[in-house]
Amino acid sequence: MKVMIVGAAGMLGRKLSARIAVEGIGGQAVDSLVLADVVTPDKPPTRTVVETHAIDLAAPGSAERLVRDRPDLIFHLAAVVSGEAEADLEKGYRVNLDGTRALLEAIRLAGDSGGYCPRVVFTSSLAVFGEPLPDLIEDTFITTPLTSYGTQKAIGELLLSDYSRRGFLDGIALRLPTIVIRPGKPNRAASGFFSSILREPLAGQEAVLPVDVGLRHWFASPRAAVGFLLHAATLDTSLLGARRALTLPGLSATVADEIEALRRAAGDKAVRLIRHPAIERIVAGWPRSFRTERAEALGFRAEASFDEIIRIYVEDDLDAPIAA
Amino acid sequence: MKVMIVGAAGMLGRKLSARIAVEGIGGQAVDSLVLADVVTPDKPPTRTVVETHAIDLAAPGSAERLVRDRPDLIFHLAAVVSGEAEADLEKGYRVNLDGTRALLEAIRLAGDSGGYCPRVVFTSSLAVFGEPLPDLIEDTFITTPLTSYGTQKAIGELLLSDYSRRGFLDGIALRLPTIVIRPGKPNRAASGFFSSILREPLAGQEAVLPVDVGLRHWFASPRAAVGFLLHAATLDTSLLGARRALTLPGLSATVADEIEALRRAAGDKAVRLIRHPAIERIVAGWPRSFRTERAEALGFRAEASFDEIIRIYVEDDLDAPIAA
Repeated sequence: MKVMIVGAAGMLGRKLSARIAVEGIGGQAVDSLVLADVVTPDKPPTRTVVETHAIDLAAPGSAERLVRDRPDLIFHLAAVVSGEAEADLEKGYRVNLDGTRALLEAIRLAGDSGGYCPRVVFTSSLAVFGEPLPDLIEDTFITTPLTSYGTQKAIGELLLSDYSRRGFLDGIALRLPTIVIRPGKPNRAASGFFSSILREPLAGQEAVLPVDVGLRHWFASPRAAVGFLLHAATLDTSLLGARRALTLPGLSATVADEIEALRRAAGDKAVRLIRHPAIERIVAGWPRSFRTERAEALGFRAEASFDEIIRIYVEDDLDAPIAA
Repeated sequence: MKVMIVGAAGMLGRKLSARIAVEGIGGQAVDSLVLADVVTPDKPPTRTVVETHAIDLAAPGSAERLVRDRPDLIFHLAAVVSGEAEADLEKGYRVNLDGTRALLEAIRLAGDSGGYCPRVVFTSSLAVFGEPLPDLIEDTFITTPLTSYGTQKAIGELLLSDYSRRGFLDGIALRLPTIVIRPGKPNRAASGFFSSILREPLAGQEAVLPVDVGLRHWFASPRAAVGFLLHAATLDTSLLGARRALTLPGLSATVADEIEALRRAAGDKAVRLIRHPAIERIVAGWPRSFRTERAEALGFRAEASFDEIIRIYVEDDLDAPIAA
């Protein structure tokens, strides 16, 4: 089995390639693993043949080059994140829309001679939803994004579904919950503070909370996210019908829930490191909770508490001891 | 006021330009009317300055050329229809996606120096919806098209909303009901039989009904459709919020309702001209009825019966006498 990860140098891409290197895909051995990103991805330690590419997906010929060897399974995680796509309209559309379309087109054209229809797992986002939103968002709720990033992800879902319907590929789009706790440095995602208010205090450092503690949102750990991707890789997609995008299960929790879980894990001292300036960022329009019947019926599972999410961060990502 | 119609040579474009030539826009005189299409549109009889362009919207430079004079109001009706977009994937994506995007981009770039934010009225379609569908489709129902045409229209809606949110243009996307009775020759729209089973018998000619008479669908006349476009041209778009796409009111009726209205208008002899082969086309996944609260609150109105729709066709389009 040939596997390709586009966007392999990102946080999820690294965790996913490390796990595939150890476990394979659904019990199947991986013969070759192609890792592509705009910067050269690191090779995970494995005996599998690993190829790495530093490539601009939206540049002419890039996608064709990646798809030439006909990978059986493609994870498309590459994206300019929400904050950056909002700040730089042209870059966001180029990478998130043109890049995705170039990849799908390259797959279509690679299959022209027949017999090629790879599984494509695409990471979409809750940003496809925008206010006014009900407290509980159903699987049939309309996607009306309020950011260019969300627009580009919604378009990616539509393209993936159309190309799947036409038989060029076998796609599944995953609207991941907001991933917490993201390890490492903050990225430019607007939702970054959900991680930093836990990650920085766990490392004995200050963090800024720019929203009200009552804000409710939808979360899963990086480990759950990698689990979602691997589950999607082997899922029977005939169960999806023509709707190839799924809102994934998550934990509906408030910022206050996060903070109380931090207190239980690392004490009052850690909580006191969260600075809460008077000026609030307006995020009232973000989704709060979902009913994810479709994804649950298909076997996707997320965490049930913030304590579990913090524990997973400590197990998987925290190098330094907790500053309790 | 400068008005541009892209797709002016089509059925709706011709009716719209003729009506603007007579009435102006919302009581305002039109100083110049630019009519563009892939073939040179006819000039309506008017004292207004009319410019015509035969132009491929998706070709490099075309959209920039059209937008250079900064029209205040742009109707974007140009599209490859559903049947053709399904038969020719590349053409459909090129015209319906790339062409629309080129137009929006040209508007954005024309406004770079400031002070330009035209009203853009975009014709979307019920084809943005796909089964499984409830009997009554709400304004917040998810758009999951089952054709490439519907996919391209859904993407157009997303782009229009994002470009409006960012202030580059002031867009409104109208999901028109299926237009009946379309005058003239059949086009390649999959829904063409809804018109032909009335139009051909009214002209004393045979027509083929490829579906069951119980099929229910959502209809409006060409006159109502032109009314929708003109209403959208002057609507207070602040009432739309960020959701720039509207499902429009229509008449929910069955093919049997159509046939009975034909019988009332032109007698049994006309009805006997409808041929009903045993092989049925599968259109069970088409939308049947909508609750269009948003559009109704904004003043959009359609017909209440098929008798009215036939009467409008006879008044507006039928040259020959009814073959009763």
